[in-house]
Amino acid sequence: MQLKRTHTCGEINAQLIGQKVRLSGWVDNWRDHGGVFFVDLRDRYGKVQVVFQPHNEAVYQIGKKLRSEFVIAIEGVVQARPPEAINPAMASGEVEVPVAQVEILNASQTTPFEINEYVDVSEDVRLKYRYLDLRRKQLQEVIVFRHKLAQLTRTFFTKENFVEIETPFLTKSTPEGARDFLVPSRMQKGKFYALPQSPQTYKQILMIAGFDRYFQLVKCFRDEDLRKDRQPEFTQIDVEMSFVDEEDVMAVVESYMAYICNELLDIQLQLPFPRLEYEESIRRYGSDKPDTRFGLELNDLTGIFNDSEFKVFRGVIDAGGYIGALVVAEAAGYSRKQIDELQKWVMAMGVKGLAYFKFNGAEFEGGLSKFLSEAERRQLQEELELREPALFLIIADQRKEFAQNVLGFLRNRLANDLDLVDESKHHLHWTVNFPLMEYSQEEQRYLARHHPFTAPRPEDMDLLDTHPEKAYARAYDLVYNGNEIAGGSIRIHSRDAQAKVFQALKLTPEEAERKFGFLLEALSYGAPPHGGIAFGFDRLVMLLTGCSSIRDVIAFPKTASAIGLMEHTPSEVSEEQLNELGLTIRK
Amino acid sequence: MQLKRTHTCGEINAQLIGQKVRLSGWVDNWRDHGGVFFVDLRDRYGKVQVVFQPHNEAVYQIGKKLRSEFVIAIEGVVQARPPEAINPAMASGEVEVPVAQVEILNASQTTPFEINEYVDVSEDVRLKYRYLDLRRKQLQEVIVFRHKLAQLTRTFFTKENFVEIETPFLTKSTPEGARDFLVPSRMQKGKFYALPQSPQTYKQILMIAGFDRYFQLVKCFRDEDLRKDRQPEFTQIDVEMSFVDEEDVMAVVESYMAYICNELLDIQLQLPFPRLEYEESIRRYGSDKPDTRFGLELNDLTGIFNDSEFKVFRGVIDAGGYIGALVVAEAAGYSRKQIDELQKWVMAMGVKGLAYFKFNGAEFEGGLSKFLSEAERRQLQEELELREPALFLIIADQRKEFAQNVLGFLRNRLANDLDLVDESKHHLHWTVNFPLMEYSQEEQRYLARHHPFTAPRPEDMDLLDTHPEKAYARAYDLVYNGNEIAGGSIRIHSRDAQAKVFQALKLTPEEAERKFGFLLEALSYGAPPHGGIAFGFDRLVMLLTGCSSIRDVIAFPKTASAIGLMEHTPSEVSEEQLNELGLTIRK
Repeated sequence: MQLKRTHTCGEINAQLIGQKVRLSGWVDNWRDHGGVFFVDLRDRYGKVQVVFQPHNEAVYQIGKKLRSEFVIAIEGVVQARPPEAINPAMASGEVEVPVAQVEILNASQTTPFEINEYVDVSEDVRLKYRYLDLRRKQLQEVIVFRHKLAQLTRTFFTKENFVEIETPFLTKSTPEGARDFLVPSRMQKGKFYALPQSPQTYKQILMIAGFDRYFQLVKCFRDEDLRKDRQPEFTQIDVEMSFVDEEDVMAVVESYMAYICNELLDIQLQLPFPRLEYEESIRRYGSDKPDTRFGLELNDLTGIFNDSEFKVFRGVIDAGGYIGALVVAEAAGYSRKQIDELQKWVMAMGVKGLAYFKFNGAEFEGGLSKFLSEAERRQLQEELELREPALFLIIADQRKEFAQNVLGFLRNRLANDLDLVDESKHHLHWTVNFPLMEYSQEEQRYLARHHPFTAPRPEDMDLLDTHPEKAYARAYDLVYNGNEIAGGSIRIHSRDAQAKVFQALKLTPEEAERKFGFLLEALSYGAPPHGGIAFGFDRLVMLLTGCSSIRDVIAFPKTASAIGLMEHTPSEVSEEQLNELGLTIRK
Repeated sequence: MQLKRTHTCGEINAQLIGQKVRLSGWVDNWRDHGGVFFVDLRDRYGKVQVVFQPHNEAVYQIGKKLRSEFVIAIEGVVQARPPEAINPAMASGEVEVPVAQVEILNASQTTPFEINEYVDVSEDVRLKYRYLDLRRKQLQEVIVFRHKLAQLTRTFFTKENFVEIETPFLTKSTPEGARDFLVPSRMQKGKFYALPQSPQTYKQILMIAGFDRYFQLVKCFRDEDLRKDRQPEFTQIDVEMSFVDEEDVMAVVESYMAYICNELLDIQLQLPFPRLEYEESIRRYGSDKPDTRFGLELNDLTGIFNDSEFKVFRGVIDAGGYIGALVVAEAAGYSRKQIDELQKWVMAMGVKGLAYFKFNGAEFEGGLSKFLSEAERRQLQEELELREPALFLIIADQRKEFAQNVLGFLRNRLANDLDLVDESKHHLHWTVNFPLMEYSQEEQRYLARHHPFTAPRPEDMDLLDTHPEKAYARAYDLVYNGNEIAGGSIRIHSRDAQAKVFQALKLTPEEAERKFGFLLEALSYGAPPHGGIAFGFDRLVMLLTGCSSIRDVIAFPKTASAIGLMEHTPSEVSEEQLNELGLTIRK
């Protein structure tokens, strides 16, 4: 490199007119205007038009060889563009740099797609050539935003006296919840490490060690079949505090959210965030993470239809089930076809049907309105305070929470279809008072709803022996515009209480000892009361930047099959490597 | 928790006299003085004496039950101690808090060792009960120092326009150098990910993607047999820059070191750091990372002994070997026994012997002085400018660099034995101009001395075909008081040059394609000139805090057998887990 840059392309503007500069970057665009050869030179900071003129013969000849994505260094004096050539869309659009010297630093093959804002190729091609995809301004801005958010996160927690402490990646496999990624040990053949699903036990150990305020931005791993917004490795903002209750943890998180939203988006959040009880949330929205930027709440019609003679309702009522409805004024004009489409959609989730009728402002009509008794019509009108025309969409099912969840999904879909969401709003609220456990039909036992270290409410401890499903957890989830962005709880800090919860989860004392013996032992050496929370960092970045895919906020994401298309991983390894690990691949 | 703390123990001092406070923490120490029960209450911020008095009967009875490491919360009004009870060794030594209310938050079993500055138990016990070990002030301070260093590192690089970008942990196995930790893939059975030994290829890809200034504090993994200062997982400060040469990278690193030394240790470093060529470093110090805080340089006596009739020297000279000596004034009085001990020590490294004689200020005596010819005596006196008495310690060996290295180790040992090092000094220098490759007898081929992406000097490119051992690398190592704390290089940014280096390393084109095909391809799409460096973060923390073991600067280290003694990892996994991965453990 002879011509080491003096400025970045982003720094070039009219204030530098007359000054000699050296720039480096990529040929973003080139135009051969007969006598003159124009290049838009691009780096991460901006673009500048540089001009190769024929009177500088040697330089001109080099310029004419340039093609897209060549890497060059140039020297020249910044000059004003002629008025007719000014480009207000470009930050450097008032100036250009006639090239006095040029150096080609590297050539480029023709790229498989153009480095543009909108890329019209499959995501697989973008992932294979990730280094080209990452040259796009939009993706670069997201990656820089991600860096800024990480920095602000660390600044915030550090100011609040939290210590960032690195926890191990080669941890212990304790399959309780998701599947672990395993790492075979060479020194202890036949044994395995596990990559952490979260640093949960380590951060609790740190509280027991006396570090009373811990945080970490940390990679975590889950070997699950991937969904749209999941990756096998993901980043978490992990937080834990001692000598606190729920309100202390929530207060810190609220200040944090206010801080980053102010710094990054210039949004002033109102504190504290509203609290919504789990049961109320399910009842009103059919979800524990409802988008509260719009109404369209669920209506429980079970009482109204208590004496229904409509066969389906009758059956559900008699079985002690639930009948709920969305009453959608904006869909009052929905056609039969539109309703059929919604029916198909919800039935794919496993409900038997989607009943409907309309209220036309005065009367009920269509769908199953003919089955409505006079009493039911009157009750509906009075209890729901019906005035305007509306479409009733009704789900009746024995499984109450399931039916509510389906209505919750339908609620989100309709909000989207009918454009009910004010996208400029930023709604944050807490969901609190979760049930501690839920019954797994598959495993025929209770599972921890959050994780087995979550503290039950003290008054519910005795329920663990008799009705574990009735115990509530000291847990809280932070919901942002309908997305769960963080979840946490006060943890169990008593050895006996932890043993009791393990027992309620049907871990035998031997299993509990083998998997979590070290934690139980640690709890017996002076564990302080503690609690914490963890944020999904990738999702937070995605939501704050308005990206629609988690893969767009990660520099090198994997596909839904957990494949790295660029570097070709996973891949085969040598027999020698397997020998050293004492492993055989089953044929 | 009824008594939520209003202050930390570190905040209590004479300014708070008369104020009601609530404190939480651990019982560090208790003394039952008949009528009065004293407790030193400890948290991460400090200690406070709290007093249980019998006139508050209920509280007093609770106080008397307290034992070491119980966790409590108390309330009381800060009061001055009686003058005779003031403890100047304690930050809160002028005051105490009589307990008005107390709450036992948790009990503690008797701990296996006391939570003291000096712990007289085996390291294995400390690691098993790491949560107790981490309660020690010294270890807590190191962990907080580590956090501060990490924060300052990020602040520095962010200010300098670097972007921290997370690279993947589930990467590709490319065994070239150390051994990879493998992660079996469940979705692609029989295939494996590898945990990264460093993000080297990803950071180069990021340069190709246009992120011109990248850094990351990142965990890396090497499955090697561990030495004292190695861990299977370790943290690296990883840095890469585009459009730069060696001097640009070194200048950024120098500013960084000056910044952290100023901020953390209040030391002003002088910039730039001296540069020492690799060959000069070996010649003068027998090491590429010499401690330059003391002299005791190597003397090459090969020329002087060219005509020696001493059989051993004669043989070495005739075989084209090397004769070098340390001339140690401080060891002029060494006894035969002391010299014997040194002889044994160096011979364990594989040299045939350690020759010696003394200069008594006028004449040579002892050892092999009887074999010295008149000419040799005169030359020694003149060329080495001998005045004072000194001990000559001489190694003669056909293998020149090996002999120099042994003298280098001997130099360090003598500096230690003779207390030649001024520990208050902070010496930083660069070693530059490394050979690009070294020949491996074991593999019968040349190996990259740094890694295969290091750029050769442009003028040495042609040597790769003929004499690869004569090519120099554009590499640089940062040496701090005799420890390599960072190493880096300018990288190859031309596809053809990279292919040529792979060839010189005897990678077949197929191997090169299979292992690094994606990098070669990326280099053909406009790769900018780039280079970087990586710091061993754990070692940096260790050196700046004066710790003697890397395990003392890591919250949860592994043993030398890569075992986690606290959580018992690695461990056996279930047959179901192995089934899902399609693996069998060989018996």
